[in-house]
Amino acid sequence: MESFQVKVLGTASATPSKKRNQSAHVVKIRGRLFLIDCGEGTQMQMMRFGVSIVKIESIFITHIHGDHIFGLFGLFSTMSMLGRIPPLDVYAPSNFGPILKFFFSYFGEGISYEIRFHAVDCKEPTVIYETKSFEVLAFPLNHKIATFGYMFREKEPMFNVHKELIEKYGLTLTEIGTLKRGEDVVREDMVIPASEAAYKPFVPRSYAYVSDTTPFPQLKEWVKGVNLLYHEATFLSAVKDAPTKWFHSNAIQAAECARDAGVGKLLIGHFSSRCHDGSLYEAEARTIFPESYAPEDGDVFDVE
Amino acid sequence: MESFQVKVLGTASATPSKKRNQSAHVVKIRGRLFLIDCGEGTQMQMMRFGVSIVKIESIFITHIHGDHIFGLFGLFSTMSMLGRIPPLDVYAPSNFGPILKFFFSYFGEGISYEIRFHAVDCKEPTVIYETKSFEVLAFPLNHKIATFGYMFREKEPMFNVHKELIEKYGLTLTEIGTLKRGEDVVREDMVIPASEAAYKPFVPRSYAYVSDTTPFPQLKEWVKGVNLLYHEATFLSAVKDAPTKWFHSNAIQAAECARDAGVGKLLIGHFSSRCHDGSLYEAEARTIFPESYAPEDGDVFDVE
Repeated sequence: MESFQVKVLGTASATPSKKRNQSAHVVKIRGRLFLIDCGEGTQMQMMRFGVSIVKIESIFITHIHGDHIFGLFGLFSTMSMLGRIPPLDVYAPSNFGPILKFFFSYFGEGISYEIRFHAVDCKEPTVIYETKSFEVLAFPLNHKIATFGYMFREKEPMFNVHKELIEKYGLTLTEIGTLKRGEDVVREDMVIPASEAAYKPFVPRSYAYVSDTTPFPQLKEWVKGVNLLYHEATFLSAVKDAPTKWFHSNAIQAAECARDAGVGKLLIGHFSSRCHDGSLYEAEARTIFPESYAPEDGDVFDVE
Repeated sequence: MESFQVKVLGTASATPSKKRNQSAHVVKIRGRLFLIDCGEGTQMQMMRFGVSIVKIESIFITHIHGDHIFGLFGLFSTMSMLGRIPPLDVYAPSNFGPILKFFFSYFGEGISYEIRFHAVDCKEPTVIYETKSFEVLAFPLNHKIATFGYMFREKEPMFNVHKELIEKYGLTLTEIGTLKRGEDVVREDMVIPASEAAYKPFVPRSYAYVSDTTPFPQLKEWVKGVNLLYHEATFLSAVKDAPTKWFHSNAIQAAECARDAGVGKLLIGHFSSRCHDGSLYEAEARTIFPESYAPEDGDVFDVE
């Protein structure tokens, strides 16, 4: 099966530590690399954890708080130093516009490639990027400023036709095409049903990235059934005012979302500097949703 | 003797690596901490190498190229997260003004302390900061944009009076004050010469930070006799167009400056990503100036 992986580059919230950088995930899907969020030092994390900087195709920014974007300027510069030619697409809330403009005013001289900004704005899950085999959706979160989550989702594949039946029935190219679309082949003398001759080569997989947010009811619907859900868990549940005062979630709330959405596996992160011991967050989350994981920087998760 | 130390937080030029961050030095003098330059990830380097972020009193920026300042926004934010109250003084070329303004426009909400910007502009070494016991001078370098070097220099100390002579001559407080100023005590019946009764408790030490620059004749005069000279050495001497095309120096040129200025010890850094093997730069520099050192990130040097 085609690889579909998430590499976690940062697991701290606003204040990093020796071992935890700020937010950044690299998504590898169909051999292509995408970056979500870009805290300070993300480029060094890429070097540390073996991510090719020049191969990042596009960047998805959830919101313009510093701990999610302060690594961008350095990354933009390094991409240029490394001789990048292909344009870089950056998807971010509209208030990222002036920040990019600032970058170009003061540090843009000699940047070797084009940076194309796509303002993200939607009230419900919306496809903002697609290829033949997968798509990226954005959906709004509930944080202090405009914030969006992103979902990477494989598209429903075409049917494959069982090889032995091609010979048995002497299927023509046209007939194979019919079966690949999931339709029955109707000959004068017989019907070859798609349900017998064709099959789906894989079940589409999906990964959702839910950054800074306080819990809200629609979220579990929007990430329903994803194979891998990243959901911020800034605090342990002992921090009672997390949702109301800081517009964040705690580990229990992240796990409740995972459970209610029926996801495959939950990744948590964005840990507050009050406590950087991931095992405590993980233990809390597992009381609600056993398949919860609190990664260290550099950990890799398959979307499966 | 009072400690006077330099901790090297970054030794790479524009492109960092797994092991080398971008430019930043922490100067500890008389128990006080100052930061010079602030490449991306400087705050994490501080955490890694045991530098107290809240104790940084002031920051000196040589020029506004990204690899010297992209760590500032994150550091400003973290200082606030850590509850800083005292104002932070930032000394930088005047074109840093709009950058600080941008920071406050987009990320300044809730910053817990004042950032006071001091525009540096001078044509020769000029004192820009001083205390009772030491001073900081700025001096212009020759780079693509306005760039300044900085020198930390202990002030000439008062004389100390030999304790045994205080008793022997029955010196009054006034007479002791006279000797401390280096003046002879003149009594009706005798003269007590300062040269006999008083001595300098230490020889003032100095450290100069010469960031991005192509060599120029005055520099060796301006850093003459410093105990510790940091001089960028972006390239090995095989890179022939370093001074003219990039306005940088190579290891040989850094060492020539150290030799001609008669400094105590030379630190090099700002190594190009073309070669991050410090031993090669060090070997080249030592052919000219034996007391040359190519540090790793985290190395500490006494100014002595």
